[in-house]
Amino acid sequence: MLTITTDFGLQDVYVGVMKGVIATINSGVNVIDLTHDIAPQNIAAGRFALMNAVPYFPRDTVHIGVIDPGVGSDRDGCAIAFSHGFLVGPNNGLFSGVLHQFPPQKAVSLTNPKYWRSETVSSTFHGRDIFAPAAAYLASGVPIEELGEQMSIHDLKEFSFPFPKYSENQIKGYVQYIDYFGNLITNIPATEVRGKQWSVIVNNQTISRGRTYSDVSPHQLIALIGSHGWVEIAVNQGSAVKALSLTYGDQIKIQL
Amino acid sequence: MLTITTDFGLQDVYVGVMKGVIATINSGVNVIDLTHDIAPQNIAAGRFALMNAVPYFPRDTVHIGVIDPGVGSDRDGCAIAFSHGFLVGPNNGLFSGVLHQFPPQKAVSLTNPKYWRSETVSSTFHGRDIFAPAAAYLASGVPIEELGEQMSIHDLKEFSFPFPKYSENQIKGYVQYIDYFGNLITNIPATEVRGKQWSVIVNNQTISRGRTYSDVSPHQLIALIGSHGWVEIAVNQGSAVKALSLTYGDQIKIQL
Amino acid sequence: MLTITTDFGLQDVYVGVMKGVIATINSGVNVIDLTHDIAPQNIAAGRFALMNAVPYFPRDTVHIGVIDPGVGSDRDGCAIAFSHGFLVGPNNGLFSGVLHQFPPQKAVSLTNPKYWRSETVSSTFHGRDIFAPAAAYLASGVPIEELGEQMSIHDLKEFSFPFPKYSENQIKGYVQYIDYFGNLITNIPATEVRGKQWSVIVNNQTISRGRTYSDVSPHQLIALIGSHGWVEIAVNQGSAVKALSLTYGDQIKIQL
Repeated sequence: MLTITTDFGLQDVYVGVMKGVIATINSGVNVIDLTHDIAPQNIAAGRFALMNAVPYFPRDTVHIGVIDPGVGSDRDGCAIAFSHGFLVGPNNGLFSGVLHQFPPQKAVSLTNPKYWRSETVSSTFHGRDIFAPAAAYLASGVPIEELGEQMSIHDLKEFSFPFPKYSENQIKGYVQYIDYFGNLITNIPATEVRGKQWSVIVNNQTISRGRTYSDVSPHQLIALIGSHGWVEIAVNQGSAVKALSLTYGDQIKIQL
Repeated sequence: MLTITTDFGLQDVYVGVMKGVIATINSGVNVIDLTHDIAPQNIAAGRFALMNAVPYFPRDTVHIGVIDPGVGSDRDGCAIAFSHGFLVGPNNGLFSGVLHQFPPQKAVSLTNPKYWRSETVSSTFHGRDIFAPAAAYLASGVPIEELGEQMSIHDLKEFSFPFPKYSENQIKGYVQYIDYFGNLITNIPATEVRGKQWSVIVNNQTISRGRTYSDVSPHQLIALIGSHGWVEIAVNQGSAVKALSLTYGDQIKIQL
Repeated sequence: MLTITTDFGLQDVYVGVMKGVIATINSGVNVIDLTHDIAPQNIAAGRFALMNAVPYFPRDTVHIGVIDPGVGSDRDGCAIAFSHGFLVGPNNGLFSGVLHQFPPQKAVSLTNPKYWRSETVSSTFHGRDIFAPAAAYLASGVPIEELGEQMSIHDLKEFSFPFPKYSENQIKGYVQYIDYFGNLITNIPATEVRGKQWSVIVNNQTISRGRTYSDVSPHQLIALIGSHGWVEIAVNQGSAVKALSLTYGDQIKIQL
């Protein structure tokens, strides 16, 4: 099994072409789209998507991620083995959320042209020419060491917002993702608030906590523990991002 | 075979996560997306989508539907057996269009935690924690009775617009769906007008009938029998919803 | 293996219904979406999508294309055999880009009702009633001759923008596609400029060439050889179509 996460959108055939390349190498592999609607070049959003989806897939799944502002520059392409499977894509921090949960076991730079689509590689579409073939070969049982030179795990790039800051009565955290419904997902884990009295303060406004969206009237703000396991801010039948005008990296406070 | 219909959109990984959960339980099942772009919480649109797609699938297909404004409240989750396969999702009327065509044979409330993803269930994402696992187990041959307590078929919720009203020279019907092209699909069945002289009246404007979009000039309104088998109003190379400013539940008249 | 390209969007169940019809005929075939977000009735965009994706698929893949402004009129539906597989859809030029690269070997008009979904065919949804079944039967090994009357290859319709015009110091070409990122893709092939000094002139503005997007600062215009093998105009982390207000068919010049 193989998943693909990109910022390519679904208007163009880029994703379809990657699936054609994969099927040409390994026609038996089951390919699942995680999402292709990551905002263009938003590594934070791609990192969040992968971090929250990868744990639900069977072991040995190969996950391709292509949010790649540096394509064609000297950033490395890499394949990473971890306890649940493999990650394939640019070395730019996109996988750092997954790797915080599941430490990397081995990493290689994708330097072996034998496992590229052809000796000639586009400078703008490594998804097709390098990442899709590497992933298809991994899913076919090619050992990761074959794909290129070993990298030190310490050379895998990090990407993250500042970690939450905890004090006696307060937690300061950051918006790490904005979903399709306009829910604001913070980087404060549910485990820090579960079983406590708490509320969220944003722009001097207090937002009460609830258990589910329908605990407040339509169009009211609510703070809750989202399905991904993070504190999130939502509007019942509406959009918290529109109501509060926050964006990626903005700070929010929890009052305990 | 298994289909998924939601209002989750494709930006987030919610749908991908459901597929991961399904593949973890049953890696051999073929999963097809019906649509994930139902307008948020629009049960009418979800009901229409399922009603019009389910008949085209092979027998024994399992259809998951998650348009679920009441998630986390006390609404039931259910699995329903019918002559063509199975339906899995909230008991809120979403399946009532399918069940008007194919009477339900058996229904259960999804109360058996053995067939949930884990004993702990999110209060906002039953698609992942209850519906996807239930559907994957059904597709693996688990008998529907295993999934929970039997429900009376009379407790399955209904959702519909008023039925059309027929008089000698007139039919009054309602907009039951607006498609991607902006076509307005009424709940007047083709069988009521086929072979007759008829036209549509909206906002005191008469719209002539045709057989296909190109029977009128570009940007002209036309009334026709749509591919789903309902009377619909379209604009050749344009949008009827923009031209007429109608929405779900609005009334239209047919002059016979 | 089978691919589908349409302008149906993903909001409605049209694409899902086609997959249901295919699975009912041949439950073993692997169906891949190329794109369903071709701008409504934009044959140029659909032609470009197919032309650029088909070469990456395994031999014997069946490609369905449905961008079909003439559905229900007297335009033919056709199936075409070519060296890499099969094409199925309306005879309106949609496949002419593929067929410039891979000459057609045989073509039939889809007139045999035995291979339709049923004897009764909708006048607005041949994708479901004629093209999906024809493709599913081809993928099951039904000979193309069975599907209907043979057509002359010379009756296959053409669709294209004017070919580029070459003079000693200049090439005039045309915008043949606008992608999701707003990149303007011309119909000037990379082979005409590779290894030369060149720049693009649009609206009296000179745009320098580069190798990859990040060769210019964010929000700057750049001309480059795109991953599809055509000269394209892009904006690093931005949209060339917004910056230049060009559209399909507009002329651009290359200065050599």
